[in-house]
Amino acid sequence: MVGNKSMAVSSPKELLLPMIVPQKLLMGPGPSNVPPRILAAGALPILGHMHPETLKIMDDIKKGLQYVFQTKNELTFAVSGSGHCGMEAAMMNLIEPGDVILVASNGIWGERIADLGKRLGANVKVLQNPTGVAFSLKQIEQSIHVYKPALFAITHGESSSGVLQPLQGIGNVCHRNDCLFLVDSVASLGGVPMFVDEWGIDAIYSGSQKVLGAPPGTAPISFSQRAISKFKSKKIRVPSFYLDLNHLANYWGCDAGPRRYHHTCPVTNLYQLREGLAMVAEEGLEGCWERHRAAARSLYAGLEKLGLKLFVEDEATRLPTVSAILVPPGTDWKKVVVYVMQKYRIEISGGLGPSAGKVWRIGLMGYNANQDNVKRVLRVLEDGLNHSRTTSRL
Amino acid sequence: MVGNKSMAVSSPKELLLPMIVPQKLLMGPGPSNVPPRILAAGALPILGHMHPETLKIMDDIKKGLQYVFQTKNELTFAVSGSGHCGMEAAMMNLIEPGDVILVASNGIWGERIADLGKRLGANVKVLQNPTGVAFSLKQIEQSIHVYKPALFAITHGESSSGVLQPLQGIGNVCHRNDCLFLVDSVASLGGVPMFVDEWGIDAIYSGSQKVLGAPPGTAPISFSQRAISKFKSKKIRVPSFYLDLNHLANYWGCDAGPRRYHHTCPVTNLYQLREGLAMVAEEGLEGCWERHRAAARSLYAGLEKLGLKLFVEDEATRLPTVSAILVPPGTDWKKVVVYVMQKYRIEISGGLGPSAGKVWRIGLMGYNANQDNVKRVLRVLEDGLNHSRTTSRL
Repeated sequence: MVGNKSMAVSSPKELLLPMIVPQKLLMGPGPSNVPPRILAAGALPILGHMHPETLKIMDDIKKGLQYVFQTKNELTFAVSGSGHCGMEAAMMNLIEPGDVILVASNGIWGERIADLGKRLGANVKVLQNPTGVAFSLKQIEQSIHVYKPALFAITHGESSSGVLQPLQGIGNVCHRNDCLFLVDSVASLGGVPMFVDEWGIDAIYSGSQKVLGAPPGTAPISFSQRAISKFKSKKIRVPSFYLDLNHLANYWGCDAGPRRYHHTCPVTNLYQLREGLAMVAEEGLEGCWERHRAAARSLYAGLEKLGLKLFVEDEATRLPTVSAILVPPGTDWKKVVVYVMQKYRIEISGGLGPSAGKVWRIGLMGYNANQDNVKRVLRVLEDGLNHSRTTSRL
Repeated sequence: MVGNKSMAVSSPKELLLPMIVPQKLLMGPGPSNVPPRILAAGALPILGHMHPETLKIMDDIKKGLQYVFQTKNELTFAVSGSGHCGMEAAMMNLIEPGDVILVASNGIWGERIADLGKRLGANVKVLQNPTGVAFSLKQIEQSIHVYKPALFAITHGESSSGVLQPLQGIGNVCHRNDCLFLVDSVASLGGVPMFVDEWGIDAIYSGSQKVLGAPPGTAPISFSQRAISKFKSKKIRVPSFYLDLNHLANYWGCDAGPRRYHHTCPVTNLYQLREGLAMVAEEGLEGCWERHRAAARSLYAGLEKLGLKLFVEDEATRLPTVSAILVPPGTDWKKVVVYVMQKYRIEISGGLGPSAGKVWRIGLMGYNANQDNVKRVLRVLEDGLNHSRTTSRL
């Protein structure tokens, strides 16, 4: 023992009680429910972070990510952190202090990319659209001509407002102007068509806890050859060892050298990400996209019957994985959310950032993107609306 | 579907085969085996990152960490990343470009802190000891007088060489010289006495996958009031939003404000960290320390019987959680490691960084730190040595 030293902080009583983890149906913008097969993978025995079986799982993940990203990029792997950590990995490796970067911002994710760019010393320019409105190729092209950025960043699936940003053509515009093209696909990857190589995307990141159905904790990411060239030409080292592409590329077997220890990767989360990717591979990516589109269409039809309107007017730019629904005038959005959670243990979310207080958000992602869940969430939303009206009249 | 567009990357066949995750006994420097109760927590249903049940689990973790750190620091939580990410969180929030920092380096972890300091623009000074040799208080004091650093960093448990660094007295020296005291406790926390408040430690980080028995993916961390003052006085923003203490403090309920969304925390990993801390609370911290000490002593005795020597000569500075054993002249260290893994599925590790090729490393951490495992690892090590000698003579 430690002699007669007394313990200044005693054993916390809270930890002697059982942990409470109820089963809920998560129909918000993520995390979405983890399918039983992936949950089971979370209880598999731990392996070392350099064991051959772990490296094989990492190799499988790489293949699976190349498939869902539709890319042949050798530098495709998963960052050991949340989707936001993926954003930081992309930005830290691609920009240097003083670089001009242009960020398309129509919701919280654009704001965050811009904020991070400033933290990293970039000269950040913002192309602003109102919340809920996608950017046109012409807008983007004009803005790139004005600012001549070294990097242009845009969000594919703006989960705060339910906007799906069309990406075709942007890569060409960027490359004609010697600019890297960075995409945030946290809320969209696997749920809508994505063609990283064909669309000329130079860097893209996502999260494990959305369509891929794994718990949060890993962030898929991919870099083009053009991005690697920019990274290699940087004069200043990355302000992080954890996210340094040189080390990550080696650890993930993306370079020619023998794999060296870099950090202790979240082994269990990798099992789960691998299983999520296996489920997409088994279903087929096109089938997975179609399932999400069909679920979203059924949701739109049901919402119309309830007299509700979608926040994004243009159907072509609606994100199937996360729908933002306008809160009707006079309705207390929070009352509905709380009622549905308390009565049914179903999550419907409010807005976030610029959309806070204006919308509800319903997620249809991965395992949860099916017709039964659409019916269920519409039923409880209707009940919630009735409850809110009844109690408001009291 | 996506019209008649063809898929450039087809579904990977590797993902249609089952994942292979064998059961092994991990007696290396970590991750160590995850106890059944914590594995089971990994398969619990997912909750949202802002749900009250999740916030309660985070509150429990905070209490548990205050207990294992022996601190009343309000700013005590877990970073969403590996132990190395914890190092980055501490360094990014506490140092500014141009700051002089002093790093005590006698193994890989000191080297890494120094490297990170340079990446962050600090003026890094290194107090160097040979691998395997702890620092004396006098050495540290003299070096602080010479360099007058804003921060002094040292590793409590040098897992690359098996050194336990005595920490008593360093805090006073630092504070008398207006210097913050930073400690890496990744390999030591929970396995040896630690008194953050009493020892005047200003910032300390650890990892989930060592003594605490959870999978890798979360990094316990704690900051003193002195550290917070330094953070608040910084002129330049943290080059990361993910690791920015202002946001993390709020998300973890360590400030007065209502908790706001910051990033999507690894919910499942938090369940598991909470259960790991609950197991320490149930056993009692002093009992946990004692169990590790007793296991290490049995290991030392057994190694002596095998004619093996420990790398760290001074028993008072031997780390109970990770022991480095000198490879006898003429013995092929790798042959032993490979044999033991292939025949028994038991992990014994080689060296790392400065100790590579010179030592084996045996970990006795958390769930694995018991007398049965000590006997088992000694038995297989003996068999491995015999095998290596026999085959060398052929």
